[in-house]
Amino acid sequence: MLLKLALPPPPTTPLLCFSPKFIPFSHSFITFNNSLKCRHSQPMAQAATQTPHSVEALPPRVYVNHSIYKGKAALTLTPRQPEFAPLESGAFKVSKEGHVLLQFAPAVGMRQYDWERKQIFSLSVGEMGTIISLGARDSCEFFHDPSKGKSDEGKVRKVLKVEPLPDGSGHSFKLSVQNKLLNVDENIYIPVTKAEIAVLSSIFNFIIPYMIGWHTFANSIKPDDSNGVNNNSNPRYGGDYEWNR
Amino acid sequence: MLLKLALPPPPTTPLLCFSPKFIPFSHSFITFNNSLKCRHSQPMAQAATQTPHSVEALPPRVYVNHSIYKGKAALTLTPRQPEFAPLESGAFKVSKEGHVLLQFAPAVGMRQYDWERKQIFSLSVGEMGTIISLGARDSCEFFHDPSKGKSDEGKVRKVLKVEPLPDGSGHSFKLSVQNKLLNVDENIYIPVTKAEIAVLSSIFNFIIPYMIGWHTFANSIKPDDSNGVNNNSNPRYGGDYEWNR
Amino acid sequence: MLLKLALPPPPTTPLLCFSPKFIPFSHSFITFNNSLKCRHSQPMAQAATQTPHSVEALPPRVYVNHSIYKGKAALTLTPRQPEFAPLESGAFKVSKEGHVLLQFAPAVGMRQYDWERKQIFSLSVGEMGTIISLGARDSCEFFHDPSKGKSDEGKVRKVLKVEPLPDGSGHSFKLSVQNKLLNVDENIYIPVTKAEIAVLSSIFNFIIPYMIGWHTFANSIKPDDSNGVNNNSNPRYGGDYEWNR
Amino acid sequence: MLLKLALPPPPTTPLLCFSPKFIPFSHSFITFNNSLKCRHSQPMAQAATQTPHSVEALPPRVYVNHSIYKGKAALTLTPRQPEFAPLESGAFKVSKEGHVLLQFAPAVGMRQYDWERKQIFSLSVGEMGTIISLGARDSCEFFHDPSKGKSDEGKVRKVLKVEPLPDGSGHSFKLSVQNKLLNVDENIYIPVTKAEIAVLSSIFNFIIPYMIGWHTFANSIKPDDSNGVNNNSNPRYGGDYEWNR
Repeated sequence: MLLKLALPPPPTTPLLCFSPKFIPFSHSFITFNNSLKCRHSQPMAQAATQTPHSVEALPPRVYVNHSIYKGKAALTLTPRQPEFAPLESGAFKVSKEGHVLLQFAPAVGMRQYDWERKQIFSLSVGEMGTIISLGARDSCEFFHDPSKGKSDEGKVRKVLKVEPLPDGSGHSFKLSVQNKLLNVDENIYIPVTKAEIAVLSSIFNFIIPYMIGWHTFANSIKPDDSNGVNNNSNPRYGGDYEWNR
Repeated sequence: MLLKLALPPPPTTPLLCFSPKFIPFSHSFITFNNSLKCRHSQPMAQAATQTPHSVEALPPRVYVNHSIYKGKAALTLTPRQPEFAPLESGAFKVSKEGHVLLQFAPAVGMRQYDWERKQIFSLSVGEMGTIISLGARDSCEFFHDPSKGKSDEGKVRKVLKVEPLPDGSGHSFKLSVQNKLLNVDENIYIPVTKAEIAVLSSIFNFIIPYMIGWHTFANSIKPDDSNGVNNNSNPRYGGDYEWNR
Repeated sequence: MLLKLALPPPPTTPLLCFSPKFIPFSHSFITFNNSLKCRHSQPMAQAATQTPHSVEALPPRVYVNHSIYKGKAALTLTPRQPEFAPLESGAFKVSKEGHVLLQFAPAVGMRQYDWERKQIFSLSVGEMGTIISLGARDSCEFFHDPSKGKSDEGKVRKVLKVEPLPDGSGHSFKLSVQNKLLNVDENIYIPVTKAEIAVLSSIFNFIIPYMIGWHTFANSIKPDDSNGVNNNSNPRYGGDYEWNR
Repeated sequence: MLLKLALPPPPTTPLLCFSPKFIPFSHSFITFNNSLKCRHSQPMAQAATQTPHSVEALPPRVYVNHSIYKGKAALTLTPRQPEFAPLESGAFKVSKEGHVLLQFAPAVGMRQYDWERKQIFSLSVGEMGTIISLGARDSCEFFHDPSKGKSDEGKVRKVLKVEPLPDGSGHSFKLSVQNKLLNVDENIYIPVTKAEIAVLSSIFNFIIPYMIGWHTFANSIKPDDSNGVNNNSNPRYGGDYEWNR
């Protein structure tokens, strides 16, 4: 019988074990703070917010993730937004690429996972590329130090190792965390099938362009663009435009 | 001569046989109940609904599916939406992933299929991943019990078996349904070519991110997000943000 | 020196030869007839149409295609929309899947193509799947009779044959058209490199979900859907919803 | 320790070396010139621009790119929009496909790159297809002359050579620029891993349809299209519509 991922078992040991769908500190939700913005808007704008149209314009926040539940552990993926920094011109730049937070939780019983003991790993866009391009017999290993460049550098060492399963059915994901600050030395292991990696690849291929902000570029491509600011042959940018040199 | 999928043959034995395009209980349509919302909207909003703009804001419902017609059976795929549950905060979470409903109907004549005798199978996101990642010589098998966890558990047993065709031209999809409640024991078999599986993969890769709600995350990524609620380095979420630990 | 696809040579023999970018009967353009709709709209709506916002709501028509130019022929791909039919309920169904029109034109000189002698072939979604899934040594062949089911059936016979190039660098696309009505018997051949097929695959994977209308389903997935019409567990649809049986 | 791409090192030799995130002449930003358009808009429209809704309608410009940093060089990819030309009918056509600007900068120290000495190469859609379809042991070579067809033709010669790395871990990208006008003869070399190429493929597959404008076609596919202008079976276009001949 296939365990339905979309129907995680209800928490039966609430203090210790619960499904990722209900963790109190989940982290991906949508950005608009409607009330704040509406408070300053004009009556007309308020009316607008009551129309069906504005419902589309102000989508509610949605927590999303994707989970893989296995006998000894669970793995939940949660997307984290890129960050933008304003420029003096009023434009923005991507100041930090988005990533996917991997949360590993050990099993503590039948379909019960101890999310208090979870260990996390932030998968970068480049690391997603590694997962996507992993051949059936390929391995990879990522090293993270969350305190890199800070005073605590070297105190926490995380290694995510992805290796082929002996029977060729997929890859194992093993997260090792050595945290000298909290005196933690934890290893969490979860097997991931070829099919589950195909889903991860589908998700990563979808989300990568957003993680680097290229959807903002894509969405800006419109023919009614007559002011010329993005005109590739604008002399201001001739120096970088190969064909106009 | 290639059978045009987009032009299913008109129903000639209406009581028994008709194309999936016309089944009375088709299931994917768009969500807005325009009239209900407009009833409460302001005159201005009503005006807005008469403009071309609002036509975009309130798209009409559209039934969509994708069908494969063969000599002995037809297979229709219909996407089913994920479900969202509201949280106290006003935000939402994905409470149930979407899926693709597979409908198998036996042929009862030249290009005629008996949709009264159809058998259905709900393909989960994980199972789509299995189909996508299926090598030319790979097989897979999915077991479903629609009454899993209910009093009728075990009364209905469904098995979808996907196996390579002997000539290497694709895979066979075989749905076996044993329904002790209705005294049904049905097997429906349809060959699916490599090219048709490529179309299924293209469709699944497109729809998977939507089935798990990640498009709501993707669409929320905007630089004009200054209220900080989704700020990854927000101290409230520091515990889960690897780099801020 | 690589021939820049985006800069087709200007027409030098206008009566006979011109690039596809300038053919008078190009076929993909966007749907809104702004002026017509605005004529009937309210003053407020008119104002709205003057705002930058409404420019987005009413995108101008854009002719798009994609071309491959070679020494002996050119091949232009133009997407054609699916068709929708209204239902009594006010909803719509996809009544005809979209396709990609292939236009083949023989060369009549250096970078000059005779679009008057072009031959066309409508590539269906299933046929796009065949192209996408074509292995390096695979061949395929599509047969079309545009008059299939009409009085002229059999008078026009089109065959598109895609075969590996002898040097393994890609595939040849050969369109043969026998038109007894116009007394035409034409063969147009164009080699397509592996890289060009990768671009076609990228385009087809992008456009297939739109061609079958699944983007309308995808775009309708929103958490603020409280009226229940698309509620999967709605008892009206219980018969088709596997898990509620 | 993995070099975090999203956290390029701060510029320490500002005159010579800085990360691509801060180059003064970066080139991809969003198109709308709000103030210009708003100047002519009605008070109501102005109000509209103050609502949260209009924030979505007028997205701010965002500079986006994607970078690969290595010991001897850095490579930054920046998308460049396609160009549209208005037609007499009020519609538009794609007059020039978009491309991705590759910027190569030599390293001048630990994580420091000399962007003053950068060399650029405009990667066309077809060339992206070549990169996407590159097998593990395949090579490719692109030749560009930015002055092709102009008086300076032949004075600048650029060659981008992509070859497998000896250890099979990816491909090397080598840009050679011979510029007789500026008396420059520069070679910049950067190794790109299989995983980084997977990210490039993901990005290219995402952006290609936008680069050729097909998203405008895709976004125009809506069931509420009743004016018939894009009706495939419109007699005006019958000559090109295979099935209506």
